[in-house]
Amino acid sequence: MTPDNPSLLEARIARARDTCRSLGLDGLLVCHLPNIRYLTGFTGTAARLLLTSNRIVLLTDGRYKSVVQARQNGPDACPGLSVVIADMGYDHATVELLRPVERPIGVEAGHFSLAAWLALSPAATLVPTTGIIESLRIRKDSAEIAVIREAAHLLSAVAEGVLADIGPGMRQTDVARALEAGMWRIGFTKPAFDTIVASGRDSALPHARAGEAVLAPGDLVVLDFGGLFRGYAVDMTRTVSLGQPSVEARRMYAAVEAAHRAAVAAVRPGARFVDVDAAARDVLVASGLGEYFVHGTGHGLGLEVHEAPRIGPVRPTDPAEGILAPPGPTSLEPGMVVTIEPGAYVPGFGGVRIEDDVLVTDGGHELLTTVDRVLRVCGVA
Amino acid sequence: MTPDNPSLLEARIARARDTCRSLGLDGLLVCHLPNIRYLTGFTGTAARLLLTSNRIVLLTDGRYKSVVQARQNGPDACPGLSVVIADMGYDHATVELLRPVERPIGVEAGHFSLAAWLALSPAATLVPTTGIIESLRIRKDSAEIAVIREAAHLLSAVAEGVLADIGPGMRQTDVARALEAGMWRIGFTKPAFDTIVASGRDSALPHARAGEAVLAPGDLVVLDFGGLFRGYAVDMTRTVSLGQPSVEARRMYAAVEAAHRAAVAAVRPGARFVDVDAAARDVLVASGLGEYFVHGTGHGLGLEVHEAPRIGPVRPTDPAEGILAPPGPTSLEPGMVVTIEPGAYVPGFGGVRIEDDVLVTDGGHELLTTVDRVLRVCGVA
Repeated sequence: MTPDNPSLLEARIARARDTCRSLGLDGLLVCHLPNIRYLTGFTGTAARLLLTSNRIVLLTDGRYKSVVQARQNGPDACPGLSVVIADMGYDHATVELLRPVERPIGVEAGHFSLAAWLALSPAATLVPTTGIIESLRIRKDSAEIAVIREAAHLLSAVAEGVLADIGPGMRQTDVARALEAGMWRIGFTKPAFDTIVASGRDSALPHARAGEAVLAPGDLVVLDFGGLFRGYAVDMTRTVSLGQPSVEARRMYAAVEAAHRAAVAAVRPGARFVDVDAAARDVLVASGLGEYFVHGTGHGLGLEVHEAPRIGPVRPTDPAEGILAPPGPTSLEPGMVVTIEPGAYVPGFGGVRIEDDVLVTDGGHELLTTVDRVLRVCGVA
Repeated sequence: MTPDNPSLLEARIARARDTCRSLGLDGLLVCHLPNIRYLTGFTGTAARLLLTSNRIVLLTDGRYKSVVQARQNGPDACPGLSVVIADMGYDHATVELLRPVERPIGVEAGHFSLAAWLALSPAATLVPTTGIIESLRIRKDSAEIAVIREAAHLLSAVAEGVLADIGPGMRQTDVARALEAGMWRIGFTKPAFDTIVASGRDSALPHARAGEAVLAPGDLVVLDFGGLFRGYAVDMTRTVSLGQPSVEARRMYAAVEAAHRAAVAAVRPGARFVDVDAAARDVLVASGLGEYFVHGTGHGLGLEVHEAPRIGPVRPTDPAEGILAPPGPTSLEPGMVVTIEPGAYVPGFGGVRIEDDVLVTDGGHELLTTVDRVLRVCGVA
């Protein structure tokens, strides 16, 4: 069963309606494309979706007309979906669509621009909301888990192949292209983000990309890469040493690996996000590296490569006043898929990050990415 | 001179301040990353920029701290820029930043979410705006033109190589990967969008991507591909025939090629966008293909692969009530760079699109992409 089959879509639509009702809304104007895909299976690059208690209408434009109509006439049709082509632009079509609808209707405030709001609000009483569809997406169903698990295994296989071939004289970009070529070959649709291959001093930049620099003996090399597979994102990071690592590099790697291990061990139903983060952070603080761990411990994975939940040092903040939201979880639940990716970045020296994808199971967790976390020494005959 | 060198940044910042002043604003909160890059050279993936009559402040987060600080301490520093790291989140930092600022300050309504607006508006009197920085970006300066010209020439060379090798038995995805590999090799940073290789019936879908389908004799194959080169996007499309084309395919190709030629010939300073579109559309209507040309004739190119101006059948609409905007051009001016890309898509039969990048010069135009537009017959020994 694929994650966008009609029975799953029907169940998600029903849950979305329940959530709207529980917030006192008759429906929701969905603007965020991953949310639209989750509810309808639509994979185009422009659309809005109106979901009410008795209708579900996809607004898209002429480019997607024939694809959407073909799908709706076939066995994989999204249940109950009607399609409107926005010939006069999305704002105009949205106003027309909302005209007969019973109030109140929510809009996705984080994904709706101020300009669209100003264009629509004179014509309709809309309620800013946040996280309604995301509150469903945060727990994956079994079809989604199956796809993510397969993707993580495939990504691990790609990583094993490329890690074995890294050597001095390669440019960062050569390694990045090898990772991407491996992903294409094995069935990924595209990279999930700009592949990071950061060597030497660049490895101390948490968001370096892959440039023209040549890998050199003594470099720590951070490889952070991911892909989209049947719509779902997976993402992993390994750090290798080109040639024998210095004592400092070994020490830093060992601390990050211990932090990673501690955080993964903390992943189970009921564990608070802040406590999973603290499990990693405490290890790095104790190693004197706390100030060099400049990001959160992890993030959710699914139709987006960064989605809820955020595994960080602070509790998720409440939405701004005037924004309606379902209660957000503060701890892990079965079916959540998150990255665990502590790192340490010492300016002028180098960095280490280790990242895996982890499924929260009823009994604890399942590590989805399977490459070992021993410090590999590459490029030594 | 690179497009982000300090003297160019200084000139852009001065022009942005002039535009704000002409709209009665003391400054602008810039949220759209390409606009931030245009004014400051910042290339990260998260930031906001406050530009006032006497300050320019980049808000970013810990991931970019060392990169930004290193740049600001070097010869390529953005003139006058101060940097604030948003440790407590962007909304919080923005409120702090706006607190002492003289009113009124504009915000980019098309790039500012309703959620961010609700978070900030109690703390500051902000004015929704649109198109302020875009009104500067629409005319490229000579450093930008030099980069775009070089990129278009390089993309043309990639296309020549791949078009020569297309043959039956290749999958759509093989051709797409060959185009992307060529772009990487020649110095592009990444593809500018998901490469389209649409063969057979898929060619009738204007926004097909590249799938597993195998190219077959008799197919029309639409190849639409582009890349980012030193930050700037170029984009081209060619349609080839695999084996001898049918009479209908030849006829359709000839009509689209004539439409393309007519639109390119119409590109000169003072030509209205709607008239350039009509030049292409009239040819297709006269050929009985008008209803199959389901998109506009072209779009601007620059730091984004789709930016102003839009070359379409309708005059640009005024912004919604309550949104402040500089007067928008309705006709071509020297320094604009646009695509010309008419197409025809006959469901169940196939499609043709031909796209080039065109610079508006003082005297007329310069075709930047250089691959010929003869219908190529591929895969015939």
